[in-house]
Amino acid sequence: MPRTRDLPLLKPEGDWCCPPLTERPLTAEEAERTAVMFKALGDPVRLRLFSAVASHQGGEACVCDISDVGVSQPTVSHHLKKLREAGLLSSERRGTWVYYRVEPAALAAMGALLTQAAAT
Amino acid sequence: MPRTRDLPLLKPEGDWCCPPLTERPLTAEEAERTAVMFKALGDPVRLRLFSAVASHQGGEACVCDISDVGVSQPTVSHHLKKLREAGLLSSERRGTWVYYRVEPAALAAMGALLTQAAAT
Repeated sequence: MPRTRDLPLLKPEGDWCCPPLTERPLTAEEAERTAVMFKALGDPVRLRLFSAVASHQGGEACVCDISDVGVSQPTVSHHLKKLREAGLLSSERRGTWVYYRVEPAALAAMGALLTQAAAT
Repeated sequence: MPRTRDLPLLKPEGDWCCPPLTERPLTAEEAERTAVMFKALGDPVRLRLFSAVASHQGGEACVCDISDVGVSQPTVSHHLKKLREAGLLSSERRGTWVYYRVEPAALAAMGALLTQAAAT
């Protein structure tokens, strides 16, 4: 069975974590869980790699597909691992390459948190 | 005129920055601009403070309203300043206190980026 995620900090479906930001202040525990995702996208190289995976044909990409961000391939792999650990990408090895795919539910949870907050 | 923001990295209306993450890979310049916002929310204390401001009555709060997150008031002020510098909060001094308010357009831009990415 492929090892798709190192830290299952986020549940892949159901109630993810937290109410919309406008509803009530997050608890310390909720903030710890949610900040991990924001932090993962808080680096320009990681954000570029994330968008490269998200926009790649078929919704998945391997390191070989997205190495044009001006950093070395080991650095790309390091950042992809960080995104996976934060629950934003899943990964699967096929032959030589590891393929990465966006976790839609993680993005939806972040988006809902922010969009609902902005709507008030 | 109140000094509402240190770094006007984000335009308050119109086209903010970037296409949805699924549309195409972000450029280096787009990623630099956008990562600033994610990074600002990538700290548990800042995220709690941000949700405290966002959920406070009237949509604004001063340090005096939201100091129950287990850190000192200077630390709270430091984090609020970081959120303001990232374009996520605006601030206004009234008498003794500085009042903070969420920038809805910044949140909407982040939410749209993520929600549209998750929808594909």
